[in-house]
Amino acid sequence: MSTLSTAIRKYRNGQVLDTDDVLAVEEPLGIAVLYGPERKRKNLAVTMRTPGQDEELALGFLFTEGIIRRADEVLDIRRDDANRVTILLHEEVLLDLQSLERNFYTTSSCGVCGKASIEAVQLAAGTRIGTSSEWQVPAALLHQLPGTLRQQQRLFEQTGGLHAAALFDREGTLLAVREDVGRHNALDKLIGSVLRSAQVPLSQHLLLLSGRASFELIQKAGMAGLGFVAAVGAPSSLAVQLAEELEMTLVGFLRDEQFNIYTGEQRVVL
Amino acid sequence: MSTLSTAIRKYRNGQVLDTDDVLAVEEPLGIAVLYGPERKRKNLAVTMRTPGQDEELALGFLFTEGIIRRADEVLDIRRDDANRVTILLHEEVLLDLQSLERNFYTTSSCGVCGKASIEAVQLAAGTRIGTSSEWQVPAALLHQLPGTLRQQQRLFEQTGGLHAAALFDREGTLLAVREDVGRHNALDKLIGSVLRSAQVPLSQHLLLLSGRASFELIQKAGMAGLGFVAAVGAPSSLAVQLAEELEMTLVGFLRDEQFNIYTGEQRVVL
Repeated sequence: MSTLSTAIRKYRNGQVLDTDDVLAVEEPLGIAVLYGPERKRKNLAVTMRTPGQDEELALGFLFTEGIIRRADEVLDIRRDDANRVTILLHEEVLLDLQSLERNFYTTSSCGVCGKASIEAVQLAAGTRIGTSSEWQVPAALLHQLPGTLRQQQRLFEQTGGLHAAALFDREGTLLAVREDVGRHNALDKLIGSVLRSAQVPLSQHLLLLSGRASFELIQKAGMAGLGFVAAVGAPSSLAVQLAEELEMTLVGFLRDEQFNIYTGEQRVVL
Repeated sequence: MSTLSTAIRKYRNGQVLDTDDVLAVEEPLGIAVLYGPERKRKNLAVTMRTPGQDEELALGFLFTEGIIRRADEVLDIRRDDANRVTILLHEEVLLDLQSLERNFYTTSSCGVCGKASIEAVQLAAGTRIGTSSEWQVPAALLHQLPGTLRQQQRLFEQTGGLHAAALFDREGTLLAVREDVGRHNALDKLIGSVLRSAQVPLSQHLLLLSGRASFELIQKAGMAGLGFVAAVGAPSSLAVQLAEELEMTLVGFLRDEQFNIYTGEQRVVL
């Protein structure tokens, strides 16, 4: 299943419409291998992917990461469950475990089970976001945020290649912007910049993301106690699910005098 | 340094211009911690980031990943070199190593040293790409690729939330498309799909990316022997550097009757 329908409240040119929106599905896929004469098991990676062609994904991953050199080094691809595959390698394929540990880089935390991960965020965030962020934002204020960000986003203007994360107060005043080639890095920089000033949890602030909203970004926002996240781009299915569980307001496609409210519509005055 | 200037050949509405372009810098940052009464060292993550505010990034990462709960749990942030920081944690911060291993997910391989990584790709790819891909593509053919992809990119049309990777032959015929919330997954699926049919190395093919071209994507393309990569979005600095080393042709901003050639201009007939 690559897409998922969800009920949203759409705001366009002053009109409000309760309708459905189609989300790109985002789910974790765990990739493991069985290797050597003893068929030892090694969990290689968990990647947040759109379900479908999981066997191709696992095969391509092994090849582009240099673990296999040819397709026939894979004897079998087993599906353990909806979100896990195990690949049986030819016993002559040498797995350089030290090199794997050294060379794989990590971008964020996540459990293979999205549910466990959601509970971990709730636990870490301490209180539920919903109880500490009961305030409202007018639609007109939301419309101003992308323009305000754009004026400050110097590097993007130059390169076209950077993501931004911006923190606003409840009146729509821009407090901080960070840019990076990695959207998760832009958000980590932003949260890192306010962490020392004891403003966290950010229950009285709005976060604006310059692109799409993935699970990872909503998770990081949740850790900082943010109750209101708006994205210029589309959210993924798992981002919406996590925002719902956290009682966070999630707005997407915030551009051109319109936006969609995916969760927490009580915080937006239409 | 967040941006880098590079010489490009720009093609716009039939006109060719040799000029400079500004790239977003992409470099790896290694994040390590010293923890416990014995100040043990643990390498936590390597992230591909834009240099600048590295201390904020490290601090924000530790917080949003749940490793610290407050800023004062960090005693010191040391810069080991341009691309490594080490964070001294308060000795009472408990580092749950098992949970870290389990919860951090990996997206791709990369060395902290880009150079070592480039050599690893060259080694794995076997031959240098340059020698096996000496053919040319007319500019008019390049202009057609995004439209052809768009017609096939069903899920993006529905959701606005998916990246695509598409494989074309030298005549511009679309051979395969894969879509995913993760751009690296879309490319792994695409390469996985052709791996069994013995078409790899893909020295006679063109790869089209629906968004930006990062180091990771060029690395994966290089592993599959691709000599020609075109992206609808911007490339990063490290993507251009790797494409140069691999003697790959890298085209960016392929849209609206224009494109930029970053490397391997000899493969484009203007």
